[in-house]
Amino acid sequence: MAILKSRLSHLESRDDTGFSSNASGRFIHKDGTPNVRRAGLSNPLQKYSWYHTMLDLPSWKFILLLITGYIIANIFFALLYYAIGIEHLTGIDESTPFNEFTDVFFFSSQTFTTVGYGRIAPVGFLASMLATFEAFLGLLGFAIATGLFYGRFSRPRAYLKFSKIALIVPFEGSSALMFRMAPFKNNLLTDAQVILTCAIEDADEKGELKSKFFTLRTQINKINTLSLNWTVVHKIDESSPFFELTKENFETMDVEIFAHIRAFDEVFSNTVVQRTSYSSHHKEIIFAQKFNMMYAPSKGQKKTILNLDLIDSYTPYSI
Amino acid sequence: MAILKSRLSHLESRDDTGFSSNASGRFIHKDGTPNVRRAGLSNPLQKYSWYHTMLDLPSWKFILLLITGYIIANIFFALLYYAIGIEHLTGIDESTPFNEFTDVFFFSSQTFTTVGYGRIAPVGFLASMLATFEAFLGLLGFAIATGLFYGRFSRPRAYLKFSKIALIVPFEGSSALMFRMAPFKNNLLTDAQVILTCAIEDADEKGELKSKFFTLRTQINKINTLSLNWTVVHKIDESSPFFELTKENFETMDVEIFAHIRAFDEVFSNTVVQRTSYSSHHKEIIFAQKFNMMYAPSKGQKKTILNLDLIDSYTPYSI
Amino acid sequence: MAILKSRLSHLESRDDTGFSSNASGRFIHKDGTPNVRRAGLSNPLQKYSWYHTMLDLPSWKFILLLITGYIIANIFFALLYYAIGIEHLTGIDESTPFNEFTDVFFFSSQTFTTVGYGRIAPVGFLASMLATFEAFLGLLGFAIATGLFYGRFSRPRAYLKFSKIALIVPFEGSSALMFRMAPFKNNLLTDAQVILTCAIEDADEKGELKSKFFTLRTQINKINTLSLNWTVVHKIDESSPFFELTKENFETMDVEIFAHIRAFDEVFSNTVVQRTSYSSHHKEIIFAQKFNMMYAPSKGQKKTILNLDLIDSYTPYSI
Amino acid sequence: MAILKSRLSHLESRDDTGFSSNASGRFIHKDGTPNVRRAGLSNPLQKYSWYHTMLDLPSWKFILLLITGYIIANIFFALLYYAIGIEHLTGIDESTPFNEFTDVFFFSSQTFTTVGYGRIAPVGFLASMLATFEAFLGLLGFAIATGLFYGRFSRPRAYLKFSKIALIVPFEGSSALMFRMAPFKNNLLTDAQVILTCAIEDADEKGELKSKFFTLRTQINKINTLSLNWTVVHKIDESSPFFELTKENFETMDVEIFAHIRAFDEVFSNTVVQRTSYSSHHKEIIFAQKFNMMYAPSKGQKKTILNLDLIDSYTPYSI
Repeated sequence: MAILKSRLSHLESRDDTGFSSNASGRFIHKDGTPNVRRAGLSNPLQKYSWYHTMLDLPSWKFILLLITGYIIANIFFALLYYAIGIEHLTGIDESTPFNEFTDVFFFSSQTFTTVGYGRIAPVGFLASMLATFEAFLGLLGFAIATGLFYGRFSRPRAYLKFSKIALIVPFEGSSALMFRMAPFKNNLLTDAQVILTCAIEDADEKGELKSKFFTLRTQINKINTLSLNWTVVHKIDESSPFFELTKENFETMDVEIFAHIRAFDEVFSNTVVQRTSYSSHHKEIIFAQKFNMMYAPSKGQKKTILNLDLIDSYTPYSI
Repeated sequence: MAILKSRLSHLESRDDTGFSSNASGRFIHKDGTPNVRRAGLSNPLQKYSWYHTMLDLPSWKFILLLITGYIIANIFFALLYYAIGIEHLTGIDESTPFNEFTDVFFFSSQTFTTVGYGRIAPVGFLASMLATFEAFLGLLGFAIATGLFYGRFSRPRAYLKFSKIALIVPFEGSSALMFRMAPFKNNLLTDAQVILTCAIEDADEKGELKSKFFTLRTQINKINTLSLNWTVVHKIDESSPFFELTKENFETMDVEIFAHIRAFDEVFSNTVVQRTSYSSHHKEIIFAQKFNMMYAPSKGQKKTILNLDLIDSYTPYSI
Repeated sequence: MAILKSRLSHLESRDDTGFSSNASGRFIHKDGTPNVRRAGLSNPLQKYSWYHTMLDLPSWKFILLLITGYIIANIFFALLYYAIGIEHLTGIDESTPFNEFTDVFFFSSQTFTTVGYGRIAPVGFLASMLATFEAFLGLLGFAIATGLFYGRFSRPRAYLKFSKIALIVPFEGSSALMFRMAPFKNNLLTDAQVILTCAIEDADEKGELKSKFFTLRTQINKINTLSLNWTVVHKIDESSPFFELTKENFETMDVEIFAHIRAFDEVFSNTVVQRTSYSSHHKEIIFAQKFNMMYAPSKGQKKTILNLDLIDSYTPYSI
Repeated sequence: MAILKSRLSHLESRDDTGFSSNASGRFIHKDGTPNVRRAGLSNPLQKYSWYHTMLDLPSWKFILLLITGYIIANIFFALLYYAIGIEHLTGIDESTPFNEFTDVFFFSSQTFTTVGYGRIAPVGFLASMLATFEAFLGLLGFAIATGLFYGRFSRPRAYLKFSKIALIVPFEGSSALMFRMAPFKNNLLTDAQVILTCAIEDADEKGELKSKFFTLRTQINKINTLSLNWTVVHKIDESSPFFELTKENFETMDVEIFAHIRAFDEVFSNTVVQRTSYSSHHKEIIFAQKFNMMYAPSKGQKKTILNLDLIDSYTPYSI
């Protein structure tokens, strides 16, 4: 690695990535989130912005959470009505304890949702007070749910699919590192920009392993309209930290490439970003011949068809 | 076309448009959306961001969808109440099967909307449980509808009307390509910018037809306040890819001009964009004398009147 | 005016303001909206973005509109219930026509708001169907109202108060045009920028009056924190279109100054803009000694007090 | 202080901070708000943007306000029903005045929340009219609450924790001023930028104390990803206004340092800002050896752990 070390030393490394040169493990997960845990807050809940958390939940978990919350709230209020005494609710079917409990539960739910059929209704101060409060809480709850729903679906997202792997392919007499991305939804991205950075673990003067960070130059780093796939190309020449590295080098070294995409979503008039990383340690950087084409004209030659399941399709080196 | 080819070859063509040089058909539709279809996703629904889709629906389709959804949900729940047994609903008019069904249907709708008159009410575990769930679902449904309504009307839009055609007119001893736009609503656009690109289909070395992309320079590419109409002017001089092209050239060649407008909406403090395209193949580029004026002073000379139906009005060449 | 004309001719005038050089009357109203009317749309409603209109309404008009809409909707539905036949509503007090009508009206409102007491309830297909539809419409109506309320109060605004007049005062051996602004609410504006443009009406070669547009340079055109007042200063030197103009010139010429402020609201993380104009024709440009100070230390010298009613306070020339 | 004065005089001071050079007390509070009070508005309520105020309230105050408003509204409407005459409400328990009042109150709350059980219901014109109006008002109230909830939790925030103190430490043969910040929630900040300004109180030519403002240069003023802590470093060399100042100088002079952070929140695709200030007068600028490290590898060396309670931890000078 002596060659690498001497070469890397006269390339300008960056100290403004915000990553620590002696961090542990992968810097960025495949989905773009940093590999850092926060600790040491007196109140562990302070670590979370509950709104960010709610927006990040998968849909099924979010729905499940709402339903669970609804059921628990109703059981809770049903118990409170019991504590007050169910003689303060008219119309309860007291034939069996089960019927009794479910009727109290249903009264609670009819209050919480403000349906209020009135077959069961509160009588007397405490039960009415509780129902007054429950209806209020129910409405606020749905007000919050309205905000969360809107927050979830209006949240700006790039909806970009990245190739899972980056390739190192022959390119213009030398070689190049390539990966590609494609929009997979009916949003319209324009003015897309890519920033490519890499981290290379290398021994410092004292022999300790430290990560160094380099900017990777790309052939084209901005395109006008991201409606087809976009193959980002970093040519590996003298100015590249990967110059003269072999397949074996990549297999033994710890190289991680960070891709950061920023584009403008024309439907929402909003900037969207997406990031991913390619780690040699996780076998995400592959030496190959080329990426295969992923679009073709439609039958009538009137449209271009973008084939999203070909995004990882490449031609390996013939053996 | 030899002259064209040699000339185009020493103009700098662009490879950062994001369009493919061997794409098929028009690049951009008249309404600004790209002419691309996505395929190859295992789940075809994945192609759509349902929120983007909901925001793009015309108003009448959106309203129709809401009403249809409401009716279907109520029929669905009515059938479930039937499955449970309508003896668990009090107050149903069982005189005829039609009355019976409609009463169950109306009970469902009174629950879904949380009106809950109580003339019909659920009794017993299953029916009450279903009503509990339906009221919850109803409220969530209206929470989502609230978000969609807000998303739809707060969506940033430029509300610009483009002339349907671009003209090539005599201009300062040479000629110029012109089109114009005007704001047609009571929003206020400022800092408007235009970017003009064109695609020209031309044979490459192997004789294959490929599109080349060029930036079209404009006389003024930014204006402060877009309150009147704006005529965008691209002078056709030596640096233009259209230099010395005749009317016949335009008729036989495949030329497409992309206009991309970006402005700041002062009411929403938001950037808005709008795009259109002019295709020679679709007869949207016309040789003519000039565009006719589309504004005039008001009677009292106190205001300027912008006449939007004159946007396509032009003076043809006299024969 | 010969001097003015020759001087203006060697200053660079601007043709990218978006204003027409032969427009009529004031260019920009005092509140920042342009003085243009749109006409010629086949459908006159197309001129309005109803959402922009709703956001621009004063609060009392907006509330009045909601209440009026609510009452009209209920009268409309009451008439429909009458058309169906009020025998399909149980619990109506039919003692007098007035009681009858009001009970139908109240049933409608109880349905529209989904209160649904149940004292009056629909029976039979048509009445129930109408109630089903009314409750649905009511909920959608409140969904839209929710969006409008949110749109209205989350709309980014600068909340800047401008001085009503601009002064021309002695300044560094020459003179300067000054106006000032101050934030008047508890929002926090940073990175405030001003752009100053003016229009001067002048005769062209053919002797026709045309407006010419000039940028006015300011001493400081950007400040970090807009928490006190900001006095914008345009020094009138050789590069100013106002150089050597006298009070009489300003009184006879038609000069309009456009101020455009852009700042960042730190509470909403949003860019906000505000504009105003000063017209010599409307006596909004005044020759005077200076603006009076409008802030002072608090009693304990621990705070600065900004006195907003002094914003137009100035010292006139002593006679 | 003669040395300081002569040195400060040849450093370029800034006059575009928007702060007044003769302001009183601290310029910016620790939480980033400016130390200014607005006065002189005819209507004192005009000073507040009620929406900004609602968004700034702590959660418990906001909830309390909603509950209080709900109770007051119901008491108010209950009194109106009394004024009309409670004989116009069916189903009221008139056994005691307390029962009577609470039943009227509960009827009001059941109307306001649109629960509408119907056990108590309005009869006659006035009571029904009032209930019609109350239900409408209730729904609008919850529409506004929905908007406020959404506004509160979607409000862009940086969630940065600043060190309470800034240190002056030995650095590269000279010294440096340092402070640090760390993100403490699960939001993801990128492209973070810092702007550092200081105010130094100094006597002017007439011997009056005036504040001068200077930009403080930082070693790195922009980082890509703010996932660990960030220590901002201002080296104190000849170009720094703090050059050659001793601990005693800092204790006697009035120095205030303003830090302004701007970053991009990738979850919301929004720019967020946060600011703080360090005042020598409030003992927030300390001479010390160094800040202690606040992150470490996790046990398995797979993650980096950021310890937020160490943010103020530093090594003092040994005595």
